[in-house]
Amino acid sequence: MKLGWIGTGVMGASMAGHLQQGGHELWVYNRTKQKAGPLLDHGATWCDTPAAVAENARIVFTIVGHPQDVEAVYFGADGLNSDRAGMDIVVDMTTSQPSLAKIIAQRAEPLGIDSLDAPVSGGDVGAREGTLAIMVGGKQAVFNQVLPLFELMGTTISYLGGPGMGQHTKVCNQILVAGNMIGTCESLLYAARQGLDLQQVIDIIGKGAASSWSINNLGPRIAQENYDPGFFVEHFIKDMGIALAEARAIGLALPGLALVQQLYIALKAQGHGRSGTQALFLALQTLNGDGSG
Amino acid sequence: MKLGWIGTGVMGASMAGHLQQGGHELWVYNRTKQKAGPLLDHGATWCDTPAAVAENARIVFTIVGHPQDVEAVYFGADGLNSDRAGMDIVVDMTTSQPSLAKIIAQRAEPLGIDSLDAPVSGGDVGAREGTLAIMVGGKQAVFNQVLPLFELMGTTISYLGGPGMGQHTKVCNQILVAGNMIGTCESLLYAARQGLDLQQVIDIIGKGAASSWSINNLGPRIAQENYDPGFFVEHFIKDMGIALAEARAIGLALPGLALVQQLYIALKAQGHGRSGTQALFLALQTLNGDGSG
Repeated sequence: MKLGWIGTGVMGASMAGHLQQGGHELWVYNRTKQKAGPLLDHGATWCDTPAAVAENARIVFTIVGHPQDVEAVYFGADGLNSDRAGMDIVVDMTTSQPSLAKIIAQRAEPLGIDSLDAPVSGGDVGAREGTLAIMVGGKQAVFNQVLPLFELMGTTISYLGGPGMGQHTKVCNQILVAGNMIGTCESLLYAARQGLDLQQVIDIIGKGAASSWSINNLGPRIAQENYDPGFFVEHFIKDMGIALAEARAIGLALPGLALVQQLYIALKAQGHGRSGTQALFLALQTLNGDGSG
Repeated sequence: MKLGWIGTGVMGASMAGHLQQGGHELWVYNRTKQKAGPLLDHGATWCDTPAAVAENARIVFTIVGHPQDVEAVYFGADGLNSDRAGMDIVVDMTTSQPSLAKIIAQRAEPLGIDSLDAPVSGGDVGAREGTLAIMVGGKQAVFNQVLPLFELMGTTISYLGGPGMGQHTKVCNQILVAGNMIGTCESLLYAARQGLDLQQVIDIIGKGAASSWSINNLGPRIAQENYDPGFFVEHFIKDMGIALAEARAIGLALPGLALVQQLYIALKAQGHGRSGTQALFLALQTLNGDGSG
């Protein structure tokens, strides 16, 4: 099938590669052409604008950075929604605003274009190995059409409901992570200050009723003072910001999430925007006057 | 061996039963005699005071409610530490203050008595099935002596260091749970308000990088509006109070934990002290004006 791909960062390049390996023809656009290199080497066609992708491909996938980038790709000059579009379906896989997903759906409809929001979780490893979880909102019939392509990129593909419901589910995921992270980092800071061996504590409390992916996977990095990403602090701040804005829009206060975002904002101010999310440990150390953060 | 057991609540009765089944002779005290019934039926000897237990048993285990109860059992009139004591070792398995564990150790030493702090996790099911995690502080040699008895009650038995270190590890466990619970409840409240199917969301986000025991085990109860305990709200408030007091004592601010405790205090004020900890969902609903909490 003739497919379009916009956004060839770490995640997008791997995901598009799976479509290519699945025998599909790709038209590709990215802000930095160089990052599309491997896809072009394997036969993909370069396009100078999103609009050029839309002219050639039937289904276009987008995965870019921030909601503003999504807006630019869809609605900017030479964006996907320009009147030259020949495509049938757009699929935004960026972790973006549920409300923007609804706007994309509303504006696409009069042009005869269907849309899906389909954010993912599973990180760069999941993207590379084709084991992502993909959370999809939009029309069920459109989901069914795109499903075989999703299956090339992920292993857990879920249809959640109308436009925005995929993004809402990703928001739920990130709210959950925020709680797990504050628990992990406060727990290990207490352990460190009381003179416990961090890895031993992780081995004990990481089983049973306190267990989480965060304590078992990021805890050991904290124990080793390894704050490499993983998942960037600044991207997590973006995701929590989307969650808080969407919650506020429906009159919903989430005090835990708000506190965690504040601490991450402080962490970024301390120069850790490009550290991994486990660096929250350093923000709590600094807060308590004993960190190098 | 001649063993003492003080505190035959839901946890204690099961744990003492495993020692009895292991062929040990038991001397038992509890505030409410009736709850010791099954142990007495199986040949345990009733004692009217903790001191009477200490007179007869070589190793005495205690698992009572609050730190004040621990103090009463050890230092009260007819307490364990009265001069009639013939015992060699005391083991407090209550989730209690690390600082109290140190005091018990200090006061026991001149009497020629060794002490361990050995709080557990795994709940009533773990107690019944003998699969508890037991976190032990005290002298290593004393730990080694008591280990065969711990092995009758639990499957993961860890030596963490000197007096109080078992309690400190349990504190780490509860700090971690606090974070996991706020994440779980805020995430599911957002999901509910956005019209998502809670169980479907749990099935998706409960795998991968957002997963926790809380979302996977308590999340489904929230989805079914089941707020039965499990683990009582009022006991969790006690545990978080211990954590915050110990942290404050060493000059350590834990803002996430403090916020979560406040929400649980509000939840108890709403009449949910004897609900399960997943009822935090109701406190957040009430906070947002749409609950029955």
